[in-house]
Amino acid sequence: MSFELQSYLKERKNLVEAGLQKYLPTEAGNFPKIHQAVRYSVFAGGKRLRPILLLAGYEFFRDDFERAVPFACAVEMLHTYSLIHDDLPAMDDDAFRRGMPTSHKAFGEAMAILAGDALQAEAFGLMARAGLESGFAPGIILQVILELAGGAGLSGMVAGQAADMELQGGSCSEKDLEFIHRHKTSALIRASVVMGARLAEADEDSLRALSAFGERIGLAFQIADDILDAESGKKSGKAAGSDQRKAKATYIALFGLKNSKERAEALIVDALQAVRHLGPRAEPLRALARFIVSRED
Amino acid sequence: MSFELQSYLKERKNLVEAGLQKYLPTEAGNFPKIHQAVRYSVFAGGKRLRPILLLAGYEFFRDDFERAVPFACAVEMLHTYSLIHDDLPAMDDDAFRRGMPTSHKAFGEAMAILAGDALQAEAFGLMARAGLESGFAPGIILQVILELAGGAGLSGMVAGQAADMELQGGSCSEKDLEFIHRHKTSALIRASVVMGARLAEADEDSLRALSAFGERIGLAFQIADDILDAESGKKSGKAAGSDQRKAKATYIALFGLKNSKERAEALIVDALQAVRHLGPRAEPLRALARFIVSRED
Repeated sequence: MSFELQSYLKERKNLVEAGLQKYLPTEAGNFPKIHQAVRYSVFAGGKRLRPILLLAGYEFFRDDFERAVPFACAVEMLHTYSLIHDDLPAMDDDAFRRGMPTSHKAFGEAMAILAGDALQAEAFGLMARAGLESGFAPGIILQVILELAGGAGLSGMVAGQAADMELQGGSCSEKDLEFIHRHKTSALIRASVVMGARLAEADEDSLRALSAFGERIGLAFQIADDILDAESGKKSGKAAGSDQRKAKATYIALFGLKNSKERAEALIVDALQAVRHLGPRAEPLRALARFIVSRED
Repeated sequence: MSFELQSYLKERKNLVEAGLQKYLPTEAGNFPKIHQAVRYSVFAGGKRLRPILLLAGYEFFRDDFERAVPFACAVEMLHTYSLIHDDLPAMDDDAFRRGMPTSHKAFGEAMAILAGDALQAEAFGLMARAGLESGFAPGIILQVILELAGGAGLSGMVAGQAADMELQGGSCSEKDLEFIHRHKTSALIRASVVMGARLAEADEDSLRALSAFGERIGLAFQIADDILDAESGKKSGKAAGSDQRKAKATYIALFGLKNSKERAEALIVDALQAVRHLGPRAEPLRALARFIVSRED
């Protein structure tokens, strides 16, 4: 395979991080704490997978992917808000993420809630501002904003996290788990790919293919995450097996480790199938799909 | 005065509440709790002041204000999210609002955090959807979205609440208090008026006047709120003097009740001054400004 995933990931990640530096306000002023809390979590060293997927979705159609960077940064801001809130004592109650104290441990609960709230507002504000300044058709930007809001709100991420909370400690059917994964994780990953494609003014057929692709890699991502948690907590910077201790609904708890690995692999095969007709330009997307189930953190 | 404020408020409020019923998803499904939590707070009986200000901002320029209702509803969703999060134990730790248990008391902390998160996403999603479907110019909608994000995020409401938290228990200067009020309360009220004007494609001069108007009534609103809290907790559905017990920074704590009332009145005079050249069509805006310092809850 001629496509070099590692250098691709590194280059795109640098681009996203430079964008985040640029687009996050740095207001010093009398009240620096909220800005510190926001930057602490945004620059805690993530893989930047969702923004890279957005760029890859764009790049499938057009070469000038730098134009899509503000929207990629918006997705990462939204994702970071969700991590901060998921870690809160009332939610998953995690003290560490990526080996660092979580936001509420470092800044207190009030600041952590507010940092998440701020990042969600800034994500939508950044898209609107970039939409007004970047020369994209404003109607396209509205579709992109709608896509992110859908991936984030009551038909997306929040619905999944709420279902997860509602079920905690209780019994979880395969159908419930599918609902949780599809909303909590897959909705935002799917939205990322589709936002990139929409920005590039993709045709409806391609949008459908990339939407199916995004959904399947999103589902695979969550299973891979649960496998990593079960096998090697250290690598993810959390305590090993922290999901199991919290009696969280995971694919592994329902079907065991072997079946979970097979399921993740099958989802990736499905995802690749959805974009098989898209030709060599989809190679970064394919490599990203494979990376999702082979990564070690 | 021929303008009938009470019937105006009632009519507009009904319009906004019908919109909220329509625009909030009702998905039953297996996980109703998050939807119950969202609706519990959205329909807890607020005055709907911000959405009414948005409609009044629009109506100053154009008659067909029904078109602006989705955007008015988005502002109310955003405001409701901020109330839910402000009441959380880690923030103001309030058990009652408008005489009812707060969201985290009724649904638990996790659901309260998620209900707020969901409402913020839904607010932006609703504006994007309405922008695509309503025949407004998409570029105008992007400006309106940017206005709300600015009023909500790190240059608006969240910055104010964060400053309030950062100062709690410590000493607060007049300048600090001004920062808190301007961001925590005034930013969203100002944004509401300006969003209405932007939707109506107002000229820059009028936008400036309405922005100044909105900022001043927003500052007056916060002082009036603190006065109500100090004088008659019961009416606001909270325990009387709850701000004082929490050693919250208020205008009253710094300058006393008499000076605070004078300051609120002076701000309203200022606000009316900012729109004095706008003629009889600004009468609803003027009546709303006076209402802000004369209301009893």
